[in-house]
Amino acid sequence: MQESDLRKNVAELLIVRASGHAYDSQRQYPKWELSNSELKRLLKIGVGGVIFFGGTTNELEQRSKTIRSLSEKQLLLCADIEEGLGQRFQGGTWLAPPFAVGSIYRQEPERAISLAERYGICTGSQARRCGLNWVLAPVCDINNNPKNPVINLRAWGEDASTVADLTRAFNRGLSSQGVLSCAKHFPGHGDTSVDSHLELPVLQHDLKRLKEVELLPFKEVIASGADSVMTAHLLLPKIDPHNPATLSEKVISELLRKEVGFDGLLVTDALVMAAIAQRYGCGEAAVMAFHAGADLLMMPENPDEAIKAICEALLSGRIPLKRLEKALERREKALTKVNMFSPMLQKKDNSLSRFELESAEDQLLVDELINSSIEIRTEGNFAINNDGINLLRIDGIFPCPFLSSLAPALLIPEKLGYRTVVCHQLGVNPWQENPDEPLALDRFGDGTVFLQLFMRGNPFRGDSYKNEPWLAAIRQLQRHNRLSGLIVYGCPYLWKQFAAVLAPSIPYAYSPAQNSLAQERVLSSLVQEEKM
Amino acid sequence: MQESDLRKNVAELLIVRASGHAYDSQRQYPKWELSNSELKRLLKIGVGGVIFFGGTTNELEQRSKTIRSLSEKQLLLCADIEEGLGQRFQGGTWLAPPFAVGSIYRQEPERAISLAERYGICTGSQARRCGLNWVLAPVCDINNNPKNPVINLRAWGEDASTVADLTRAFNRGLSSQGVLSCAKHFPGHGDTSVDSHLELPVLQHDLKRLKEVELLPFKEVIASGADSVMTAHLLLPKIDPHNPATLSEKVISELLRKEVGFDGLLVTDALVMAAIAQRYGCGEAAVMAFHAGADLLMMPENPDEAIKAICEALLSGRIPLKRLEKALERREKALTKVNMFSPMLQKKDNSLSRFELESAEDQLLVDELINSSIEIRTEGNFAINNDGINLLRIDGIFPCPFLSSLAPALLIPEKLGYRTVVCHQLGVNPWQENPDEPLALDRFGDGTVFLQLFMRGNPFRGDSYKNEPWLAAIRQLQRHNRLSGLIVYGCPYLWKQFAAVLAPSIPYAYSPAQNSLAQERVLSSLVQEEKM
Repeated sequence: MQESDLRKNVAELLIVRASGHAYDSQRQYPKWELSNSELKRLLKIGVGGVIFFGGTTNELEQRSKTIRSLSEKQLLLCADIEEGLGQRFQGGTWLAPPFAVGSIYRQEPERAISLAERYGICTGSQARRCGLNWVLAPVCDINNNPKNPVINLRAWGEDASTVADLTRAFNRGLSSQGVLSCAKHFPGHGDTSVDSHLELPVLQHDLKRLKEVELLPFKEVIASGADSVMTAHLLLPKIDPHNPATLSEKVISELLRKEVGFDGLLVTDALVMAAIAQRYGCGEAAVMAFHAGADLLMMPENPDEAIKAICEALLSGRIPLKRLEKALERREKALTKVNMFSPMLQKKDNSLSRFELESAEDQLLVDELINSSIEIRTEGNFAINNDGINLLRIDGIFPCPFLSSLAPALLIPEKLGYRTVVCHQLGVNPWQENPDEPLALDRFGDGTVFLQLFMRGNPFRGDSYKNEPWLAAIRQLQRHNRLSGLIVYGCPYLWKQFAAVLAPSIPYAYSPAQNSLAQERVLSSLVQEEKM
Repeated sequence: MQESDLRKNVAELLIVRASGHAYDSQRQYPKWELSNSELKRLLKIGVGGVIFFGGTTNELEQRSKTIRSLSEKQLLLCADIEEGLGQRFQGGTWLAPPFAVGSIYRQEPERAISLAERYGICTGSQARRCGLNWVLAPVCDINNNPKNPVINLRAWGEDASTVADLTRAFNRGLSSQGVLSCAKHFPGHGDTSVDSHLELPVLQHDLKRLKEVELLPFKEVIASGADSVMTAHLLLPKIDPHNPATLSEKVISELLRKEVGFDGLLVTDALVMAAIAQRYGCGEAAVMAFHAGADLLMMPENPDEAIKAICEALLSGRIPLKRLEKALERREKALTKVNMFSPMLQKKDNSLSRFELESAEDQLLVDELINSSIEIRTEGNFAINNDGINLLRIDGIFPCPFLSSLAPALLIPEKLGYRTVVCHQLGVNPWQENPDEPLALDRFGDGTVFLQLFMRGNPFRGDSYKNEPWLAAIRQLQRHNRLSGLIVYGCPYLWKQFAAVLAPSIPYAYSPAQNSLAQERVLSSLVQEEKM
């Protein structure tokens, strides 16, 4: 192989990050999202994949066409969409998180399995119609550690068989739509309490335990046809005391290739994540991952450096050329599979309306998931209150994708006379230094407080939200007879904690979903019909 | 004329409002923006124009194509873009407000005139490339009342000749790009202190005064080729004691048609605005405006009702059929003009990159406007401060188009050690009841405060922002030696008030533009070079 061909072949294994928006000026994270000129240059030297973040579905559709036209080879175009296309691309359907399906599974496993399949169909069909051919889901991690700050509601359940049944169904639905799937994060990221976006989590399980628990969903979803697997950035000292899973030959060849028996496309989790990038450097991390058995390299910090380092390792013999051939072969095979569907599905796509991405089936799914996953105690008294304070707690305001000035979480209480106050990390401090009376109530004025807490683990944020003394604040408000209601949108574990201290007279509700439909359902159920 | 033809002809005069986004679920204001099915229905019955709000430029481009394909007649597609396409459509160029050009005019009239022309070119070319053929600018109002809550920075200046010179230049630039222009708000909305979005302003000027001041820019810009004029929702008791300008035959025929001599297309301001809609009702307001001489009816609250009422008025003889013929003729003439350019310009558009809407010329303009309009007192000491508080004041957070978590207004002070706190109308109250010490400093912690105030008059908000006691807060912070700097983005009048009480040692700056480029320029000029 000539050196220039080698470079092109190696480049093919890289997935680089771009905005779903059309123009450089629209990028939300210019530090991590390639400029258009860089993107063009990298596609020209042969980079084989792009992962998109942000933008609208309409833009994504244009964007994927433009990007395809710039490459000589067929591209893998992917996104991290675990909760419907709307999670990343405005205009797509944003579904209740997978965990909601897991909760339904407890009572009605058959219905949950059918919902998970429809979840996959909804995600896959919208992704395909926007030009993607690879969806980075399902999450096969079991959320068996309630302290997990990063998996949490992204998981399909808290035990192996729930997760296995539901991810298999999701995968079936997704595959039927002509896009590739990705089981992640191998060998299981559920039992950790550290955010791998911030530091390297350690998992003390041995092979026996992994075989009994964490590996089961991967085995099943792979047996039923998952197209790719993504590694986790975790250290498993009992398997490989030196290298995190992404860079560990032992984890990849012994656990994944031999034990689980997966011979498909293996992709790393993002190599820019601090757990990897800061420890090994960009070039070396890429070489180690590729050497260990990863076929595709997701978001290396510096793509040119990664290509150069891998080429050097191949030329020097540190990595055998067969590794490259095998990786390219797996990539080719996956693309061939997805291409089989294309002509038939594209014909269907062309007949679709320019006016709606969401199908009637998608809408039914959204509704059913929300209606089945919200919990409401109706015997409350959430009614007109002209002194009331509608106190919202959110993570961030720039942006807050589930709130607008017309969001039900604001409008419905405001219609009842409540005045909205929003607490967030960049706002004026609502707290005072008294552990029993943590809320500085004088900052809010008189009147009772209707509390809406939007709290869930989010990658990159760690679990800082758990340090806010909301449990004590709820007790404080109750003690002063100033709590007129409570809604938690998000984390089920926090919700259970809060619910345990609530007096029976307080109207309360919980929703795993945070979007406006969930707000509307929960609030309109709590409000006394005749008072609206 | 048959009744069904009459209905189609009348429908042609309506401009209805739609989102620039593709899907119903993406609408920001579902109450005011038609659903896609309603829009389709109205286009089918013959509605002749659409005004777009929101969405990205990429979406708008798709959207305008889709909408054109749904109509049998040629449509007027417009938007309220007075500060570059980016003011309404994310991804377009967002220019410093026209008032910034007016300030440059004082020292360098020739340069300001050239900037205004480039302003028109930038706006017109981007609008055309996104499928619009009508830009609702220039604002010809003279901001001769500093208390004006709604015109303010939207005006090109504070006196007639500045506004006349600059709007003429803008209009020349805009017209060169093959889109229609619109001089507004006739007969001049500058000398008012009430927001017509909220109530009906009254202007006590007589004909003599109007001829000497308010009408001059309209006269000049019309003489130089403005394609349309938009009426203001104002009562001018000395001209017509009964009807606001939009509905006043006296204002329209005597002032506009005779005195100013305009025989082109006349469009009403939005008929849904409270000043009109609540007073007359939808059908009657449309009939009155049409009867008075308006050719096009902007955003009637209920389009079907407006069509029905006008048809009835024509059939009953209350309005002569000639009125309809004249209006249709003027519309036709405007479209013919804009069509002459199309083939040549479209050819140019097709050769443009899918990767950038903003041209190199547009970028130079953005830069020059910001660099020429910011005011900076550099002899400050804005440096590393690990206790510092970066206190931002903004109107609203859902959304705040000029801030993101990576905006320079946050990032640059944060790099120096400052902690950001954002005050907004929905946040925890930063105030206490002490007129001399209005800021509740205990809510912010110790450390000096670097204050960034984003304040300008915005339609629909009235001037509530002027009630916040920032002047007293600035005095308070200075008295306690806790003010480390001040930047005002927006209203020049507030800025002058604040600057008058600032000690000479305090670093300060002012920018009429609020966007991230303005933030970056202002802040990096204030920061001591060696400390960054």
